[in-house]
Amino acid sequence: MAHIQVHRDDVELDEPTLVEGLPGVGLVGKIAADHLVDAYDMVHYGTAHCDGLPEIAVYSEGDPTVKAPVRIYADEDRDLLVLQSDAPVSPSAAEEFATCIVGWFVSHDVTPIFLSGMPAEKSGDVPEVYGVATGDGAALLEDADVSVPTESGAVTGPTGALVHEAQRVGLTGVGLVVEADPQFPDPEAARALLTTAIGPLGSFEVDTEALVEQAEEIGKAKERLAEQMQQADEESTSARPLGMYQ
Amino acid sequence: MAHIQVHRDDVELDEPTLVEGLPGVGLVGKIAADHLVDAYDMVHYGTAHCDGLPEIAVYSEGDPTVKAPVRIYADEDRDLLVLQSDAPVSPSAAEEFATCIVGWFVSHDVTPIFLSGMPAEKSGDVPEVYGVATGDGAALLEDADVSVPTESGAVTGPTGALVHEAQRVGLTGVGLVVEADPQFPDPEAARALLTTAIGPLGSFEVDTEALVEQAEEIGKAKERLAEQMQQADEESTSARPLGMYQ
Amino acid sequence: MAHIQVHRDDVELDEPTLVEGLPGVGLVGKIAADHLVDAYDMVHYGTAHCDGLPEIAVYSEGDPTVKAPVRIYADEDRDLLVLQSDAPVSPSAAEEFATCIVGWFVSHDVTPIFLSGMPAEKSGDVPEVYGVATGDGAALLEDADVSVPTESGAVTGPTGALVHEAQRVGLTGVGLVVEADPQFPDPEAARALLTTAIGPLGSFEVDTEALVEQAEEIGKAKERLAEQMQQADEESTSARPLGMYQ
Amino acid sequence: MAHIQVHRDDVELDEPTLVEGLPGVGLVGKIAADHLVDAYDMVHYGTAHCDGLPEIAVYSEGDPTVKAPVRIYADEDRDLLVLQSDAPVSPSAAEEFATCIVGWFVSHDVTPIFLSGMPAEKSGDVPEVYGVATGDGAALLEDADVSVPTESGAVTGPTGALVHEAQRVGLTGVGLVVEADPQFPDPEAARALLTTAIGPLGSFEVDTEALVEQAEEIGKAKERLAEQMQQADEESTSARPLGMYQ
Amino acid sequence: MAHIQVHRDDVELDEPTLVEGLPGVGLVGKIAADHLVDAYDMVHYGTAHCDGLPEIAVYSEGDPTVKAPVRIYADEDRDLLVLQSDAPVSPSAAEEFATCIVGWFVSHDVTPIFLSGMPAEKSGDVPEVYGVATGDGAALLEDADVSVPTESGAVTGPTGALVHEAQRVGLTGVGLVVEADPQFPDPEAARALLTTAIGPLGSFEVDTEALVEQAEEIGKAKERLAEQMQQADEESTSARPLGMYQ
Repeated sequence: MAHIQVHRDDVELDEPTLVEGLPGVGLVGKIAADHLVDAYDMVHYGTAHCDGLPEIAVYSEGDPTVKAPVRIYADEDRDLLVLQSDAPVSPSAAEEFATCIVGWFVSHDVTPIFLSGMPAEKSGDVPEVYGVATGDGAALLEDADVSVPTESGAVTGPTGALVHEAQRVGLTGVGLVVEADPQFPDPEAARALLTTAIGPLGSFEVDTEALVEQAEEIGKAKERLAEQMQQADEESTSARPLGMYQ
Repeated sequence: MAHIQVHRDDVELDEPTLVEGLPGVGLVGKIAADHLVDAYDMVHYGTAHCDGLPEIAVYSEGDPTVKAPVRIYADEDRDLLVLQSDAPVSPSAAEEFATCIVGWFVSHDVTPIFLSGMPAEKSGDVPEVYGVATGDGAALLEDADVSVPTESGAVTGPTGALVHEAQRVGLTGVGLVVEADPQFPDPEAARALLTTAIGPLGSFEVDTEALVEQAEEIGKAKERLAEQMQQADEESTSARPLGMYQ
Repeated sequence: MAHIQVHRDDVELDEPTLVEGLPGVGLVGKIAADHLVDAYDMVHYGTAHCDGLPEIAVYSEGDPTVKAPVRIYADEDRDLLVLQSDAPVSPSAAEEFATCIVGWFVSHDVTPIFLSGMPAEKSGDVPEVYGVATGDGAALLEDADVSVPTESGAVTGPTGALVHEAQRVGLTGVGLVVEADPQFPDPEAARALLTTAIGPLGSFEVDTEALVEQAEEIGKAKERLAEQMQQADEESTSARPLGMYQ
Repeated sequence: MAHIQVHRDDVELDEPTLVEGLPGVGLVGKIAADHLVDAYDMVHYGTAHCDGLPEIAVYSEGDPTVKAPVRIYADEDRDLLVLQSDAPVSPSAAEEFATCIVGWFVSHDVTPIFLSGMPAEKSGDVPEVYGVATGDGAALLEDADVSVPTESGAVTGPTGALVHEAQRVGLTGVGLVVEADPQFPDPEAARALLTTAIGPLGSFEVDTEALVEQAEEIGKAKERLAEQMQQADEESTSARPLGMYQ
Repeated sequence: MAHIQVHRDDVELDEPTLVEGLPGVGLVGKIAADHLVDAYDMVHYGTAHCDGLPEIAVYSEGDPTVKAPVRIYADEDRDLLVLQSDAPVSPSAAEEFATCIVGWFVSHDVTPIFLSGMPAEKSGDVPEVYGVATGDGAALLEDADVSVPTESGAVTGPTGALVHEAQRVGLTGVGLVVEADPQFPDPEAARALLTTAIGPLGSFEVDTEALVEQAEEIGKAKERLAEQMQQADEESTSARPLGMYQ
């Protein structure tokens, strides 16, 4: 049953870039991915039906249409895809999810950009960003002037499984690592990813002004958000608001 | 072995509506569903034998006949079905249950109405109700004047798995979300579901006076009920009273 | 491998009644079943080898022959079988056990009498007994003057799985529910089952005088017994005395 | 992969007796079995490769050769086998181990003697020993003048699974039960098994003087031994001394 | 999917020796193996893709190329392989990993040297080293003047599973056991392995001066390292520095 269901055969893409936005440290991937979907008014292109993904029904303010929690959005002009997730992928499902989604990347000539936060204390500076590579991704990083790792490390969790699988099958892709707040959503880190690396890699310029403006608002909401993410594996049936990052 | 066993081939239905009544937040689905079965004197139409459902033997006061815990009741005149459950569906069984029962909906042209409570503090007002949709369900909501979501959110748990599965296979259906008491049975929220949305969606008027009258009695019994629901996965063999919502 | 192994092909039975005696609330089933085996000097007729049953080796004082823990005893004259168990059936094995043993009931024309205790405080009165039915069991209850349920409820645990399975396959059988001590063995409740319902259902009269006489002795031993039952799933190899209910 | 690997085809046995020595209450089986291997200078005859057995590498002082933890030793002259184990069989693996090893007993005409300790307080007397039987084992017990059980009971744990399986398949064998120290190794109980029952059953006389002499030394070492046995399922890689019972 | 992926077909090896470096007590295996890879500037020869290995993406300072966590390095001149791991093998995966990797050893004529620390208190002396053997490994130990075990014992954990599997299939190999610090990385123990046994077994001399010099630095870093190893099974996605032993 595991597959990516494509809803929009009318959207034509040519070896697109995909920005992955699973929730992780600082929610950096999710914030950056959601920002792209909003900023470029991307269309709901596909849905991930991979074994182990949470079976919840997601909806948005003002629109009764139910969606699955892990979806792909597309921007035909920029040859850009975004993987958006409204719920964490559980560690036990990470391996199957990686096989399912990276297999689709390979068969559709997708070049993924994986996003990961590295826990770090806040300094006043712009958070440091560096890149890692699978397949021939090192050339992409060099072309986009993304730094090499400043220390040895490992990407773990669901995103780690995705990068690992891309490496295993030899798919060209990159992984971006940014210093991020280990406890709360970190829009500054997400912004650093977008301006320093995702924009140059995708050959587009992203207006992140809205992100900066929302920072204060996000700061206020962050305790509530953290709480909601922790409750994501709650077991009894209920409906829950998803907050501003739907 | 997973299937829906139909006991009444004599009952003729034509693209029926089904009201789902699994226990959840505020027991809103169960209270509303049980009320319909009582109010319309519905007949025991079928039994769900899906993998993972609790294997307990349920009986009613004054009637020795044993029944399985998850059953379907029918009202031929109103083309109405109700899914009644005397025990919670465990989260680990939710996915298989969803596949089992939504498959039956599809093959029998059933339009489901899923019910879910959203935890909220009690105000004096009528609890807010809004609807979400799968397949072409948005039109049904509009025809019945059911509000669209006032915030983004997700339906989780067993009912979430049902809505998710209906969305995945493209079955037309609706999900109703109501503000409900997060701790105790909430007959007021169930009544709001019935009068604001279920009635209009099913084109029938439900007398909920009995529900109002029982409210005080329910209030008294609610601590005992909550206790019983928690004990539902008790392991040793015993017989247990089920209280007023059999 | 799951099957009922019959040791005595020489015993001829004609649509026998079977009294089930799994340990449960108040040990009512076990006490009643063991009493029948003793009172009628029943022969060891068969052994249950169903997946998930505890693999322990049971022996009796004065007799070195090892037996499996879940056995069937027979009384050819009364067309009576008793299912005796020296260890609890674990909840995770209950479903498979139910399929295994009810399947044998169906293929051997056995009419089961399932026994269950309902936790209740001790009053001075004879404990209340009522009956539930599967298949055409309601007629059996009526013929034997067994009361209908005085409240709605559910039989849970391993015995609940047995009743549920009998209901599912349409096997005629009855379940008896008796008020019983929730903490300790309750020979009075077992006696009420035997005199009020099991005897009339099986058309025989049981001398329960011995049971009454043993009551005081059982009272003294009850703390030790409770402890032994709790230790039944102990993991290290050892030999343990089984007490008076072997 | 589950099988018994035989290393010594040159050893000829004729319907041998096998003494089982899994660790259990008082380590009585292990102490008795190890004593036989030492006293008769038995040869390493086979290795048990049954699913679920611990995959550790065992070695002895002065000899670098690695062995598996569950092994069979042979004494051709006495037609005697001993099952020696350097690690406990986990309860979850007991059923598969029983099927694996009893199957080999059946196909190789082995008559097993299973050993089990029954927790008891120390009196000054020789610990009581009695026997239980599978298949035609009762005659063996009678010939060897082994007592019948003085109370009803059950053999549980891995050895219980072995006796249960022997009973199930109808293999002739005996089980010996001895009163033993519930907390510490009990060489006196092991000695009682050897002199009262194992020797007579196998028609040989065992010199247990060494065992008596070691008793004091064992007494000193017993806290260390108990600790080692508890640590047997430690998870990180390490090498550990096995003490005097290798 | 379980297999060893070879990246360098140009490297020619002739019945090579392999030094195993899984993390264990004192990290002795990892420290010794990493030192060989650095000292001989070994090339990344292959990657282990065995079921159950952690799916994380590892990278090194200054090099964006992602690698899997369990890799094989080669030195063509010395006919030497090293198994390097950046993450612990979980106990539940140990058996499958052992089958996967020892199978590759057999088919590629590899003679493995397994490394294990035995918890011991620090004395001022050089830590004691002794060897155990599988297949014809005892001769190798004798030729290299490696001591025999000074007490009986067992190698447990993932390395124990490897030695056990080598013994089971009859592969010639050796296991080295060294006294090591039970809590912290122990470069002195790793050095003792290299100079006393690994060097003589592989017929090469290792310069361990760098190891000595790093000892003090390692001493300072050891609390941080211990912490990182404990966090290796952390579940949320993040990037983590790996410290000096990449």
